[in-house]
Amino acid sequence: MILTVDVGNTRIKAAVFEGNSVLENFVFQNNELETAIEKILQKFKNCSDLVVASVGNVEKQSFLIFENRLKVHFLTHEDKFPFINKYATPKTLGIDRMVLASGATLQYPRQNRLVIDAGTCITYDFIDENDNYLGGAISPGLRLRYEALHNYTAKLPLLSFEIPEEYIGNSTVQAIHSGVVNGFVYEIDGFIDEYRSDYSNFIIILTGGDAEFLAKRLKNTIFANSNFLLESLSQTFQYKIDND
Amino acid sequence: MILTVDVGNTRIKAAVFEGNSVLENFVFQNNELETAIEKILQKFKNCSDLVVASVGNVEKQSFLIFENRLKVHFLTHEDKFPFINKYATPKTLGIDRMVLASGATLQYPRQNRLVIDAGTCITYDFIDENDNYLGGAISPGLRLRYEALHNYTAKLPLLSFEIPEEYIGNSTVQAIHSGVVNGFVYEIDGFIDEYRSDYSNFIIILTGGDAEFLAKRLKNTIFANSNFLLESLSQTFQYKIDND
Repeated sequence: MILTVDVGNTRIKAAVFEGNSVLENFVFQNNELETAIEKILQKFKNCSDLVVASVGNVEKQSFLIFENRLKVHFLTHEDKFPFINKYATPKTLGIDRMVLASGATLQYPRQNRLVIDAGTCITYDFIDENDNYLGGAISPGLRLRYEALHNYTAKLPLLSFEIPEEYIGNSTVQAIHSGVVNGFVYEIDGFIDEYRSDYSNFIIILTGGDAEFLAKRLKNTIFANSNFLLESLSQTFQYKIDND
Repeated sequence: MILTVDVGNTRIKAAVFEGNSVLENFVFQNNELETAIEKILQKFKNCSDLVVASVGNVEKQSFLIFENRLKVHFLTHEDKFPFINKYATPKTLGIDRMVLASGATLQYPRQNRLVIDAGTCITYDFIDENDNYLGGAISPGLRLRYEALHNYTAKLPLLSFEIPEEYIGNSTVQAIHSGVVNGFVYEIDGFIDEYRSDYSNFIIILTGGDAEFLAKRLKNTIFANSNFLLESLSQTFQYKIDND
């Protein structure tokens, strides 16, 4: 039994796995890290390993207090991954993107794979059918777009995500929802179209907090799995064990 | 001869008009307002009117010091515009968007008109062939997207606009350029497609700081005029004079 932890830019997600099955999912804030993990480990006493991927401000030290209870694995660029990294700057490739690429490579062998993670940022990651990781793109996620409109202008309000009534927003609130939400959807469909025109034998995996909403709205049909990063973390760990 | 001034969220743009012709364009920062206008008026001594549209933090008072030299017109929602405003919240409709809608209505009569202003924010404004202003959308502009990625994440750098080499960015820097710039282009093409599928007899006017770059990249062909807001300001003023 292992505990996987994904430290993002906004919050921390975690899941307990028994083999390939998720036993339970958790979401908490950075400052709740210690007590949250403590609670999880009390409930799942058989956890043997804690596997962490962090792109946020939480470093390895924060997890070492659990070392007397189970083995702590803080994934870094030095770890073994199942793809060939063709990134020109592999050291700056976010560990979350490496884990997603790793999960895609292991779960969907011998095909072109695009992973779209719609969280704080939208990350696009492409692994070709020969397991070459080629890179992708990073753009602001849904919430960041709402916040940017408010924080960088004099007069626009801060709104929470809402599905726009029409693409022609007939009020400032509706205009913002349309611009942010439709813009977000058009962007993702635009990227998918671009990849589709260059590659066949192609699978798209959509994950992240906004995956479910998006899956219904994209004109392209895709496979949505909001738990894909944590699943990939569990599989990357298994791959590491098998290949060490 | 009139001096038009557009106070945006990032900077101030101004132009001197003689009839419909631009004599000179100016760009300056908020804190340079007084000296910049002073200089312009010294050069163009025949300016009779100062016409201002402001969505930024500069209010009417800042312009009143010039009242002994020429007439000051600070456009508000109370002014006369050539379209029928169907916005549900007309008081919150940015004066910049009203001026753009006004210019589109006056310059391109009897057709469906979409104005896209790619500045600090991207604003989309639609006026149908019967001169009904229906609203549109607002989303973050190019620079805002770059800033949001840096300011709301722990590890992404702040970059300046650059045309991405490939849509598959093979470094963190290239991934950000691809996500921001291609996402921006896909969004705008997506909105245009949506309008095109509902409306015929249709003109698209693209303006704002990023208009020229965009015009070359959109799959949809459009009419780009980076001076459209100031031209519209001059025309809106003329319309006001003619109809008062």
